[in-house]
Amino acid sequence: MAGRPFRAALAGLGTVGSSFVQLLHLQREYFLIRALGDIQIFAYCARTGGLRGLPLQEARFYADAVDMAQQADVDVFIELMGGAGDPAYAAVKAALSRGIPVISANKAMLALHGRELAHLGEQTGATLRYEAAVGGGVPIIKTLRESLAGNRITRLSGILNGTCNYILSRMETEHAPFVLCLQEAQRLGYAEADPSFDIGGFDTAYKLAILASLAFGVPVDSEAVSVEGIETITLADLAAANDLGFRIKLLGVVECTDHGLEQRVHPTMVAKSTPLAQTMGVLNAVTIEADALGALTLIGPGAGGMATASAVLMDLIDLVSDRKAPTFGRPVSKLVTGTRASQDCREGSFYIRLNALDRPSSIAMIARHMAERGVFLESIVQKRGEEDPSDYVSLVMVTRKASENHVRNALAAIVAEGIVCANTQLIRIQTS
Amino acid sequence: MAGRPFRAALAGLGTVGSSFVQLLHLQREYFLIRALGDIQIFAYCARTGGLRGLPLQEARFYADAVDMAQQADVDVFIELMGGAGDPAYAAVKAALSRGIPVISANKAMLALHGRELAHLGEQTGATLRYEAAVGGGVPIIKTLRESLAGNRITRLSGILNGTCNYILSRMETEHAPFVLCLQEAQRLGYAEADPSFDIGGFDTAYKLAILASLAFGVPVDSEAVSVEGIETITLADLAAANDLGFRIKLLGVVECTDHGLEQRVHPTMVAKSTPLAQTMGVLNAVTIEADALGALTLIGPGAGGMATASAVLMDLIDLVSDRKAPTFGRPVSKLVTGTRASQDCREGSFYIRLNALDRPSSIAMIARHMAERGVFLESIVQKRGEEDPSDYVSLVMVTRKASENHVRNALAAIVAEGIVCANTQLIRIQTS
Repeated sequence: MAGRPFRAALAGLGTVGSSFVQLLHLQREYFLIRALGDIQIFAYCARTGGLRGLPLQEARFYADAVDMAQQADVDVFIELMGGAGDPAYAAVKAALSRGIPVISANKAMLALHGRELAHLGEQTGATLRYEAAVGGGVPIIKTLRESLAGNRITRLSGILNGTCNYILSRMETEHAPFVLCLQEAQRLGYAEADPSFDIGGFDTAYKLAILASLAFGVPVDSEAVSVEGIETITLADLAAANDLGFRIKLLGVVECTDHGLEQRVHPTMVAKSTPLAQTMGVLNAVTIEADALGALTLIGPGAGGMATASAVLMDLIDLVSDRKAPTFGRPVSKLVTGTRASQDCREGSFYIRLNALDRPSSIAMIARHMAERGVFLESIVQKRGEEDPSDYVSLVMVTRKASENHVRNALAAIVAEGIVCANTQLIRIQTS
Repeated sequence: MAGRPFRAALAGLGTVGSSFVQLLHLQREYFLIRALGDIQIFAYCARTGGLRGLPLQEARFYADAVDMAQQADVDVFIELMGGAGDPAYAAVKAALSRGIPVISANKAMLALHGRELAHLGEQTGATLRYEAAVGGGVPIIKTLRESLAGNRITRLSGILNGTCNYILSRMETEHAPFVLCLQEAQRLGYAEADPSFDIGGFDTAYKLAILASLAFGVPVDSEAVSVEGIETITLADLAAANDLGFRIKLLGVVECTDHGLEQRVHPTMVAKSTPLAQTMGVLNAVTIEADALGALTLIGPGAGGMATASAVLMDLIDLVSDRKAPTFGRPVSKLVTGTRASQDCREGSFYIRLNALDRPSSIAMIARHMAERGVFLESIVQKRGEEDPSDYVSLVMVTRKASENHVRNALAAIVAEGIVCANTQLIRIQTS
């Protein structure tokens, strides 16, 4: 390392890529103090080919990322293009095949091909690092892979999508409906023109699948994640949550239960006293519960060019410092699928909001359908309904611990009675 | 590593030591999954010599820690005895001198001798790790040393003492005075019979000095930390903080200012919306502000046998995995003292509470003494005084940004006017 600079090939000069080039340049002197030697971008590849004022004059330009991965004589291939498939996927495979270590920020690629890529890297001895793929600048990957390697994790819950957290926070603080807050997020650049990947929970699901592999030793499998987005959350839900001592957050949760491993993404009522509930705006936060350690929470910027570039740099410094760890915390051969908890046996306590006909018999009928399926209510609060003030009342119920399946069946039976108007809302409660 | 087990010598079987032995035993199978091989306690040393039911039958007992450090044929020396001086200090020196890596949870030893020990380790090639010395199970050391190695840190603020945080949280939630809450903490085992090390801020100062070295590249120097404890905090201060939108926390703060590096421990008014303010009870929390990353917060158990043992195990797993980093994040030769900000030039905004004679001229006189020294008030609120309801009123003031020195001088001048009874309170405000 002392003799010649450490040579990087960089694919992708978007927000994260160009921030990374700037950061690397900015910290050059600092690396010398830290005894990290000189790190240079030796080759790069970008869609437009322009330098955008970046200090890349001495780097060799490649028009094609796969070409660069196959040919450049470098010590690391840094993939910041994004996209689950080619060219990112082909380029990363090409680099790993040659034994060149890879750093990637590509959550979709990791979620869909992580196990295969880790296996390829093991065969050629090339490491695959991806701190920037989850949680932006928050070092959640390294914390799970290294710091918690001596703990058995029981549950991981995270706010992994800043867009959703911004929208929910703004709905709560401004009492503004979902659609307006989404538009505001788009105006500020927090949400894409097509926001469905974020607000539908799919971005969170990709990230959760990666964290689940690290935390529980299962192969990354985004198909194993049940996903629900935040589109149906209303101001009435947020107000009811507030009354009950909760905030509503889109959580990714992976949890070891009696029935197997649950991986789920859904809006969740979180107790206000928890760090997750207190994480507002575009921040990300992850709480890890582990046998020896207890609960550890990390909170920080989940997106943004410089914060994400900082995570890429974390990986690069680990690589330069020759600090290694298995891609998913253990050898690929030790990743075991285990039992996947079926949705049918999921249990929890739930918040239910529905608009029911304002008749003396309504509540009795609702409670009966619940009780018949073993669902008992912790509380039930009645308010004037929004939909039709004359005939309907809004009922907010909180169940005791019950099977989600039974709760859904009871709700279906109640709806079938014809006493409910508009949509019913069902939100999981997480008290700790 | 594959051939024979990794052999550890363990000095100290107190709460952390015995928890560590249990944890190591408990996770044995898990290590195999993680490809960490077999880790055995090969030698141990404890004051009483008894096994206390721990699985140490196959380990060799030493009566003297220094003997063990000098003679045992081991791969790591784990020091969990505590105490800044001998035998811990001598034993750690003996092990490092022989080139044996050391893991320690000893904040006092690190704070007083950290630089010397790191230097010794560099000479013999033995690493010195100490994740458990600060923040209990919270991996703050590794985060600063490795994850943030590519960032320049601008400020670090932490709740580093669970005892103080428990007392302040309880005072606030139960409206119970300091002395009662301290007694409760002692009853629960959170505070020592002689609590002065904790509540006087000295424990926090040791930890802060270690974090300052990692974050800012200065040699550990607990003498550089100005220290104030929580003994003088009253329920009136907590109530006023609440009215102003703050909570009072004992923070350790190290910050790069225009005048140099400030290292200080003192009760601080922290904005309620921040993660530090929301950290209640015995938890620890650290917020790191860095140039690229932004703000990162870690929250978790700052004490307790198993949580601290988990941190010892983090170090051990890094060692077994051959992941290395310089003891304080850079070679000892690159640790530079730099400019230490003198207390005289410290600036901030301040909360002041005093009981003043209930006369029309009092407020004018107070404001004049402040203004003469360039201290301008953001707000001033008058309430009936507690001390003497007939003649005195309680005044709560918040200053704009001002020199701490000027604020203290103004307060002294006000006291000299003879219009103030009882103690005046001065608390630093940290808004972000």
